[in-house]
Amino acid sequence: MSPLSITLDRESRVPVYRQIVDQIRDALATGSIGPDDRLPTLRALAGRLGVNRLTVARAYDHLSEEGLIASHIGRGTFAVRGGQPERSLHPPPGPAWESLFARTPERAFERPFPSAAMTSAGEGTISFASLYPDPDLFPVKEFRDCVDQVLGRQGAAVLAYGPPSGYPPLREMVAKMLGERGIEASAEDVLITSGSQQAIDLVARALLDPGDSVVVENPTFLGAVQVFQSLGARLAGVPVDEPDRLVEHLEQAAARRNPKLAYFMPSFQNPTSRTIDLEARRGLVSIAAGRRFVLLEDDFAADLRYEGTDLPPLKALPGGGSVVYVSTFAKKLLPGLRVGWVVAPPRLIDRLISLKKITDYGTSLLPQAALHEFCRRGNLDHHLKKVSAAYRSRRDSMLDAMEREFPDGVSWTRPEGGLSIWVTLPDGVSADEVAGEAESRSVVVGRGDLFYVESPRRENLRLAYSMTSPAIIRKGIAVLGEIIRRRMTEGPIPRREKRAEPMPLI
Amino acid sequence: MSPLSITLDRESRVPVYRQIVDQIRDALATGSIGPDDRLPTLRALAGRLGVNRLTVARAYDHLSEEGLIASHIGRGTFAVRGGQPERSLHPPPGPAWESLFARTPERAFERPFPSAAMTSAGEGTISFASLYPDPDLFPVKEFRDCVDQVLGRQGAAVLAYGPPSGYPPLREMVAKMLGERGIEASAEDVLITSGSQQAIDLVARALLDPGDSVVVENPTFLGAVQVFQSLGARLAGVPVDEPDRLVEHLEQAAARRNPKLAYFMPSFQNPTSRTIDLEARRGLVSIAAGRRFVLLEDDFAADLRYEGTDLPPLKALPGGGSVVYVSTFAKKLLPGLRVGWVVAPPRLIDRLISLKKITDYGTSLLPQAALHEFCRRGNLDHHLKKVSAAYRSRRDSMLDAMEREFPDGVSWTRPEGGLSIWVTLPDGVSADEVAGEAESRSVVVGRGDLFYVESPRRENLRLAYSMTSPAIIRKGIAVLGEIIRRRMTEGPIPRREKRAEPMPLI
Repeated sequence: MSPLSITLDRESRVPVYRQIVDQIRDALATGSIGPDDRLPTLRALAGRLGVNRLTVARAYDHLSEEGLIASHIGRGTFAVRGGQPERSLHPPPGPAWESLFARTPERAFERPFPSAAMTSAGEGTISFASLYPDPDLFPVKEFRDCVDQVLGRQGAAVLAYGPPSGYPPLREMVAKMLGERGIEASAEDVLITSGSQQAIDLVARALLDPGDSVVVENPTFLGAVQVFQSLGARLAGVPVDEPDRLVEHLEQAAARRNPKLAYFMPSFQNPTSRTIDLEARRGLVSIAAGRRFVLLEDDFAADLRYEGTDLPPLKALPGGGSVVYVSTFAKKLLPGLRVGWVVAPPRLIDRLISLKKITDYGTSLLPQAALHEFCRRGNLDHHLKKVSAAYRSRRDSMLDAMEREFPDGVSWTRPEGGLSIWVTLPDGVSADEVAGEAESRSVVVGRGDLFYVESPRRENLRLAYSMTSPAIIRKGIAVLGEIIRRRMTEGPIPRREKRAEPMPLI
Repeated sequence: MSPLSITLDRESRVPVYRQIVDQIRDALATGSIGPDDRLPTLRALAGRLGVNRLTVARAYDHLSEEGLIASHIGRGTFAVRGGQPERSLHPPPGPAWESLFARTPERAFERPFPSAAMTSAGEGTISFASLYPDPDLFPVKEFRDCVDQVLGRQGAAVLAYGPPSGYPPLREMVAKMLGERGIEASAEDVLITSGSQQAIDLVARALLDPGDSVVVENPTFLGAVQVFQSLGARLAGVPVDEPDRLVEHLEQAAARRNPKLAYFMPSFQNPTSRTIDLEARRGLVSIAAGRRFVLLEDDFAADLRYEGTDLPPLKALPGGGSVVYVSTFAKKLLPGLRVGWVVAPPRLIDRLISLKKITDYGTSLLPQAALHEFCRRGNLDHHLKKVSAAYRSRRDSMLDAMEREFPDGVSWTRPEGGLSIWVTLPDGVSADEVAGEAESRSVVVGRGDLFYVESPRRENLRLAYSMTSPAIIRKGIAVLGEIIRRRMTEGPIPRREKRAEPMPLI
């Protein structure tokens, strides 16, 4: 390829990333970048142009959405053949991959899964970006004992094909745990899944045809949104920022859209960290029962309440027959094991088990058996006490630091559990820009606008406190406070360039 | 409910299961069985009527296919509300589940996933029914060491969220293993999946919209058929019983149906145990490359060749860019871990990784890391030697026994690897009836007709030798020989009743 020549006009009102987009698009159109040519790496181009790597990433994302370029992990970014006039009249035989892709799931890939950049801890980055449980709190030794005992005692049995519905003692145990939260379920009502992500996917596959309507909270968890979109569902958002009107909003959306499914996270919602009160919970279930749609309850943060009164899950309320309940060991225990579950009425659970067979023929038995052993020994209760104390102290540190460091005009939630706080910036301060500047100063946050399915608001940050110690939290919040304060009074300051690896924002 | 009254006419030319179907249908129509009433268990009704439990199971399957009854695992079988005139004018609020089910995947559930009944070994059952590796051959001790070392050395890292594309060292190792089979792939071309079942599911989801055509071998693996059907694909079968005309058949099917995907198992095909020769392999790939559809190669029995010359996978042949390759550790090592993989060209692998994120956010890391450690130590090579010797000896025992026990007119394959033999019975001997009678004598086999997607042939049995020792194999084949011989000369004999638990036929 001829060298890619890009000239930036820093005085222009056209944003820098747009200038990059336009000039690469021109280069593709004129053929100065040919089909299958490799584009410079983010770091190289950012270095050459003297801009932030994120700016180049944003430009590449746009070009990728336009179908002009495509990134291949570990290989780089290339011009897409067919994204510009073909030069060869004899393309090699073989499938034209893009043209073979299914159209149904296409919506799910229209915007790339958002990433928050994160460097390794050794480089001093402070990460508030992801709802990850802290690996430093994992009960590695206890779990290792359980795995070893399971393999010693049950040997081949947990390495052979098992029932696709799950390891029977674990189904039993999950049903019992749910009983303690007021959900009446027997082992037969429980399907063990590969994380709650798969639980959501299976429920959606069982129920949704292309064109079906799904109501979601707005903003909401993008992993669920992508599932619904991948099945060709049409999404409608219910605003969550007016808790008193939540039920009314659902009623209106249900009347207007006649949904088959509504997806809610009643406790410590992702991303807003809000919890729906008991009256509203009753209202949601009653609407679903009356209108006969399915309420999909995602209780991902179950057991991560550090204070206040526990509220019953939707599934435990009158009308709960309309509720399908999913949860996971990921947030409260060990995410990498990928063990979650779904509880559903008999006819639906049978269909979900059939789909589970089709999908992967059952979740790996060894992690299930080890988790069962871990809980059987009472280790989960002990672990929950430990992490609750740690996360509570981190939350308090973050709230204290915000109180001290954030200027008037910034507001935030004070959740009684979960892993994050939702911050609302004052008018005129862009969360995107604050996030970008913070990253250049090694503080990584979740941009709120990425979680919206419609009418995105631009003034929110999701700040997870789960991965960071109180001292580091104070340091990170001080940096954010300084950036916000400056932007409220003086406008943006130049960014320092910072190398960073993207990580998925979940 | 009023007691279910069924009277059988043993002299009738109407088969017994049909008589049961008709009388239960009548009872539903007249209301003597009401909505949500529980039907007798298989065992109870079989006992009461003095018939084989499988006969009742067959009747229930038919009624279930008609939507009149539904089984709930662990609870029993119930009359379906709406399968007969409603008696209540005021049904309780909540979803009418059946009416909410997605229509797209419905085809996959039209016929129930076939089960072969199998009692526990303690009851003396001989199982030739399932392509399961023998748990007695599992390297439990070695694997346990690997798991323990991984948890000791890497601790929290393998219990935290990992890359959805798979544990990087395992991707690397799989790519290297494939290189030894002539497939050029780097780690970035490999996606680790939860078994090859999920690999097939992801490829299908990436490519298939409802109405798209898929060509499959006929007969073929039902787990793949269900995936394609669940996405609303239209299936066309290519007969595999004329190896010399296989390429011609694919060419014709491709011309007629313009498929997006064709699914093949070139080595030790399931269920026929046939291997496609090199010339035909070249032909298949060349058709796919020329017509630009995707050839999905399922190499589930890779490395389970006990003699003869290894043939290159389709993916390694000229035109292999059109081939997507899936395989698994299930058959050659440990099925319960649910670790398989898919190798695809860059644009497709990126899409598959995106779908993997949506589906379950990545396969459990611990089994992946332990498998990597196991292979790194050279344990896999050692294990393959051990199981190859064992399976080869079992295959030889089965072939020898067939030679001795099966009457003239029966023919069978002599595969150089894999886990099973495909038997063709003489005209006029029904495989279904032989299977039923064999089961009543505690020998469980795979009915060949269940694997067909169209024009099912009724004269085949799939006999897996992998789970059974040579002595038991000889005993089981002797029983089958006796049944077949009698039926060729004297017709059916009465069956003995036998309690049995169904297991999926995979």
